[in-house]
Order: sequence, then C-alpha cells, then structure tokens
Amino acid sequence: MADLAGAAHREFFAVRTVAETLAGFRPAHRTTVETVALDDAQGRVPAEPVLAPHELPGFARSTVDGYAVRAADTYGASEGLPSYLDVAGAVAMGRAPEVDVAPGVAVAVPTGGVLPPGADAVVMVEHTQEAMAGTIEVVRPAAPGDGMVRADEDARAGAELVPAGRPLRAQDLGVLAAAGATSVRAHARPRVAIVSTGDEVVPPATAALEVGQVRDASAVALAALVRDAGGAPDPRGIVPDDRDALHAALRAAVAECDVVVVSAGSSVGARDETAAAVAALGAPGIWTHGIALRPGKPTLLAEACGVPVIGLPGNPRSALVVFRLVGMPVVRLVGGMTDPPPEPSVRARLERDIPSAAGRLDVVQVAVRDGVATPLFGASALLSILTAADGYVVVTDDATGLPAGTEVDVTLYR
Amino acid sequence: MADLAGAAHREFFAVRTVAETLAGFRPAHRTTVETVALDDAQGRVPAEPVLAPHELPGFARSTVDGYAVRAADTYGASEGLPSYLDVAGAVAMGRAPEVDVAPGVAVAVPTGGVLPPGADAVVMVEHTQEAMAGTIEVVRPAAPGDGMVRADEDARAGAELVPAGRPLRAQDLGVLAAAGATSVRAHARPRVAIVSTGDEVVPPATAALEVGQVRDASAVALAALVRDAGGAPDPRGIVPDDRDALHAALRAAVAECDVVVVSAGSSVGARDETAAAVAALGAPGIWTHGIALRPGKPTLLAEACGVPVIGLPGNPRSALVVFRLVGMPVVRLVGGMTDPPPEPSVRARLERDIPSAAGRLDVVQVAVRDGVATPLFGASALLSILTAADGYVVVTDDATGLPAGTEVDVTLYR
Repeated sequence: MADLAGAAHREFFAVRTVAETLAGFRPAHRTTVETVALDDAQGRVPAEPVLAPHELPGFARSTVDGYAVRAADTYGASEGLPSYLDVAGAVAMGRAPEVDVAPGVAVAVPTGGVLPPGADAVVMVEHTQEAMAGTIEVVRPAAPGDGMVRADEDARAGAELVPAGRPLRAQDLGVLAAAGATSVRAHARPRVAIVSTGDEVVPPATAALEVGQVRDASAVALAALVRDAGGAPDPRGIVPDDRDALHAALRAAVAECDVVVVSAGSSVGARDETAAAVAALGAPGIWTHGIALRPGKPTLLAEACGVPVIGLPGNPRSALVVFRLVGMPVVRLVGGMTDPPPEPSVRARLERDIPSAAGRLDVVQVAVRDGVATPLFGASALLSILTAADGYVVVTDDATGLPAGTEVDVTLYR
Repeated sequence: MADLAGAAHREFFAVRTVAETLAGFRPAHRTTVETVALDDAQGRVPAEPVLAPHELPGFARSTVDGYAVRAADTYGASEGLPSYLDVAGAVAMGRAPEVDVAPGVAVAVPTGGVLPPGADAVVMVEHTQEAMAGTIEVVRPAAPGDGMVRADEDARAGAELVPAGRPLRAQDLGVLAAAGATSVRAHARPRVAIVSTGDEVVPPATAALEVGQVRDASAVALAALVRDAGGAPDPRGIVPDDRDALHAALRAAVAECDVVVVSAGSSVGARDETAAAVAALGAPGIWTHGIALRPGKPTLLAEACGVPVIGLPGNPRSALVVFRLVGMPVVRLVGGMTDPPPEPSVRARLERDIPSAAGRLDVVQVAVRDGVATPLFGASALLSILTAADGYVVVTDDATGLPAGTEVDVTLYR
C-alpha cells in the first residue's frame, strides 16, 4: 500500500504548464542528414536551402498560343486600324527558333514555345486574324512582356527554390524537378522507439483475453502519430512493470533511436518504476514529472545521453492527447522541422458549457456538425470518445471553463 | 496555322463550372476490397464498418488508484465523520480479483485494475487515509460508477468501432487494436497513372537542357497529391504529342489503373491531340472539355471503360491547381472515401484587391503572415508562385473580385 500512500504527494512534483514545456523542453539532438531521391522526398525536411543551379525556365517562353512580335509594332492597333505583320515562320515546340523577329515581322509560337530573338511580346491568336497568306492583322496592342515569361522569371540562378526546415510539398518537388534536382539533402526521419509497459497489457493479436488484460491500443496509434510528425516508428513490444526489464528496454532504445516514447503504466506504482528506470538512464535526466494538462498530467519528459525520452500516461486516450501536444513537436524538432505544416482547424460554437480549473490546460474532445461543437465527456480511459471526436478544443490555463455559445477553434483530426 | 486559327472557338466548347464538375463528374468505378494488416492501415479506407467483437474494455475497471467499495458504504462520509472500511486485500494489475467487496469492506485497486465483485465505485486514494493496520477512513462520499468504467462503457458488443468510408486515424487504429482487430477490410489504394506529354518535356534527370526543353515538373508533384488523396501514383513517363503514341499510352493506362491523369500539353494543338486520343479510348467518353476556372480552364474530364481520365493543363502550376480542386476528389471517390479528411485553413485579411471575372472560379495563391494574406500574382506558367505560397484563396463564380481588407478563408498547403 506504500504505492498508494505516496501518490498524492508525487503527483505535484515538478509539474510544468504546457507552454513551459513547449518552450523549455528543446532537446538539441537532430537526426543525421542523408541524400533522398526526389521521388521519395515528399514530406522530407531539407537540411539546407536548395538553390537554383541555373535560371528557370531558362529561356524566354510564350505563355499563350499566338505570334511573337516587337511590341512597338502593335502600338495603337485596333479592330478599325489593325497592325499588319509578315509571318516569317513558326516556332516548333521544344525547339530553338529558326527565325528572328525583325521590325514588321511576326513568328507563330505555341504556348510554352521559345521566343525568337528580337521579340519582346506574344500577341494572343484571339487578337489577330489572317489578312492574306503570310500576313496577319493585329487588332489589339501588346506591351513588352505580354504573353511571355522571361528566361529567369521563375527563378534566377542561385535563387532559393525551397527553404530548409519545411517539409517538401507537392509544388516544392515540382520546382526541384524543373531545376534538375533529382535528390535532396534531408534530415533522416527520426527513429522513434515506442515502448509499451504494463502487466495488464497484451499484444493486439491476443485472441482471447484473461480477466484484467487489455490489448495494447497505444502502440499502433502512437506509430501513426509518429508518421504524421515525419518520424519512423520503431515499436519495441510490451515490457513488464519491472524496473530492471524496463531499464534494459529503455537503455537499448536510447542507444538505437532518436526519440524514445514509453507508455509509463497507468498506476502510480507503474509510473514510479518508469521514472526510476528513466532516471537511471543517464544525464541530464528527468526534466519534468508532470504537465498541468488534462488528460495527461502524469507525463514525464527526460533527456538521456542526448536522446529525448517521453513517458506517457498509461491510458491510451491520455497518451494520444499528450503525444499530439508535446510529443509530436519533439519528433519534428529532432527531425529538423523548424516550419511544421499547418493543422486543420475550424471555428465552431460550443453546444454546452465546458468546466475547467484555472492553472491547467484542458483538452476536450468534440464532435462538429454545422458549425456546432459538441463536447464529448467521459472517463479519460475511454478510447471511444476519441474515435467519436472530429477534433478537440483547448481550454487554456487561465480560463475557468468556457460557456455554451462560445466561438472556439477546433483542431481537427485527419 | 490551323491549330491557332481554331483556338478561340474550341476554348468555349462544353465549359462547366467547378461546382457542376464536382457534382456531376462522379465515376462509378471503385477499387477492390483487400485485407490490410493493422500496422499498415493508417489512412486506409474501411470498406465496411468494423464492429466490436466483444464489449470493451471487457471488465469493470478502475480509473484511479484507490479502493473499490460499495458506494452506499461511503454516503455521508466527511473529514469530520469518515466511513471506516476493512481492507480485505488488493487487486494485482492484469489479474482477476481474489476477494469480493462485501458491505463494510474495501479492496485496494490500481488504475486500470479489475473491479472486484460487489464493488460499484472506486474511492481515490487521496480521499482516504489509513486509520490502523487493515482499516481505512474514507473522507469523501463516492456515487455508484465513480472512479471506474463499466465493462461495456468503451463499446458494447456489436457496436460500430469505426465507420466505412473515413480514412483510419491514429485513434481508430487504437480502438481496433483494443478490440483485437489485427486487420481491416479496406479499399485498395487507387492506382493512378500519371502520363506526361509534350514534345518540349524531358525527364527531371536531364542534366543539360536544349533551348526550348523543360524538365517534367508535373509528374513528381502530381504523384505527391495522389498520395495525399490516398492513391498510389504510377508515373508512366513522357509521351510525345502524337495521337498514336498518346492513344497507345492511354489505352494501356486505362487497362491497368483506376484513374488516369494526363498532362494534356500546353498548346492548343497538343491539347487537341490529347482530346482526340481520349475520345478514341471508348464510351462514355469526354464529359467536359473545359472548366470555368483560372488557372485551369483547358481541363478535360472523361470516362473510358469505367476509368476516369483527367486531362490537365500543360503548365505545372495550372495542373496542380486543377488536380487539387477536381482530381483529388475523383481519386478519393474511386478509393471509397466518402468522408475525406479536413484540410487546413485559416481566416486572413486580404492585403490587396483581387480582380476576377464573374462566371469563373479563380484560385489565387497567397502568402499568409500575421493574419494578412498577400496575393501572389504572376503568369500561370510560374511554379515559383506556388512554392512561395502558403495556401490559396478561391474567388467564387458569382464574385467579380475581392477588395483589399476582405476576410477570406485560405486553404493552407501541407
């Protein structure tokens, strides 16, 4: 009963706010940098800006189907008083032009074709008509630069194509391909150990449960969030609530991975074993024993031999809430992601009051329909609340709850 | 020059609005259903709801560290007048209880432990104190159900754990693991052929370009968007602007894939070749030749032998805009996704006027900083506008532009 007796005391040891945690727990460890083929680079984080090796598109290019001209030859042109130009030829797609544009001359050019020397604009075909064989009438004036892009308009040589620290998006891959960058120097995906603990926890494949056993719901869900944060999950199975077994599992995880996540057991006794095992891993050790967060207070953050260790509450729902709020940012940081992608969110009106206590950040699951957010209350042990939720509302430390009707920001699950 | 002469006419053939397109182009084809291991099921789309094979958690469970009691034994308890209960034993984590809770009796139970028979509540350890060996004082009353969850509180047997049609999220995987569902029946990822065309287009790995050549920027970027829509990209290389070559490439793609995407060439002539090749693929054929969308008007939608074919504009930026707006919904539909994940967005104030014409939907790229959205204007051929953008603003068909200062919804890129 010693475990129970000490619980109330230990709960209040070194509790930090979520804001303090996000600002203060900033492990220095970063993953190594590797060369990644462009086809595999979606979501990968460049370790340095990628610069244009040459100007893009590399040649002055028509952006319309029409005629390359000297703009001055079209000044004043109108339906009533068109400019007449001699058509000296046509540019073929993907080929260098074979004729120049001299004064009084036009050269047919397709969208994307190379502007012939001497031309400084392209007149859309819709603004021309054939006058006689080999001659066109231009019925609207063009200004220099109309209907074309300059050779360096998409990028000057040496310009930054994509920044470091931001995961590569579809269009970033496109511009890299355009520049001939077939690979990119990117941070390795953080390898994230997921250590499940608990004498009651059995593998998901367990067909029939004994009374008191529960299948490991956290590992597969945490693995999904690790991937969402750009990491590579490394599930390391279920370790019993035993200090030596736990210490051995954690020591191996710290040696082999970039981040270690451990479900710290649900009971105070199990959590104490985890804390002791983490403390024994090495300097600088435990950074906080708890976060002013509901659910998720019994969260442990540590750094051992340079590797961040995140001890999550034992119940899967609290574990997922904490990992979203403070674990994913750590994974992103270690993976070099200084500019994380935006999360979906929506403004909605609260259907009911949300009670809360000041000095603690509350994460409340909500269902959203037609602009109304309905809080889903229930024991933090219930996973069904999370699967029924479309997202969550944060009640900040300084608030003592939110009344029905409040406009709130709902962070949406994807 | 025949190509140029007919351009203005063909542009206005069978143009649909974006809304008409999304509502009207609804191919019936769906991917087959396959069994997917839970570890690989993130983002996969269940083909049918998954039901709980048994109740969850499966046994009445403590949610606190404390003492299982009969609630009636604690009624009226206070600091001044505690209830005295005999401690008959302790429940071990993951084990069946060895003692019952009779009237006047308490059994110690850790968070997550099984409730012993006879108990209907758990008193938190913080609300008790040891009176003498084997006896506790309860100083706050508990109501039935306090400090515990019922055996079927997370799910009744047969309850829906996850719905069909919604991609599996982290918590969905968690609840499936808890229920022992180690695999799920899900739609196969739509295999999406990406056919690049254009006599000027060369592979990204081309080290030195001839004048007039451009590297294929669209394929790798479209592949990323296909993955974002839950599909499996199948890049099929670059086909010349030649009707026979194009027809052969498209026929093979339609036979082997669930969706076919073809960059339809930038010039009117190239687009005509694509349209002719698509029309020859089979019934029901071309659904629209154009969408009232800027950029992206020269978009072709067709269905050939039950497979949707999407002809995108030749320039990469327009192609990406169109594929986000109308291509990704088609990929999701074919993959059985009836409830797509939310997209990130933010409200922002326009820094400058956006001009637009009524009757056409405009997609304007913007940079967002401190709640201000700055429109990024430039030729639609420029990819750099997309890489500089944080997201885009849609100006609907009925609007003739948006004045500076308007509050707009920005869809954010991730």
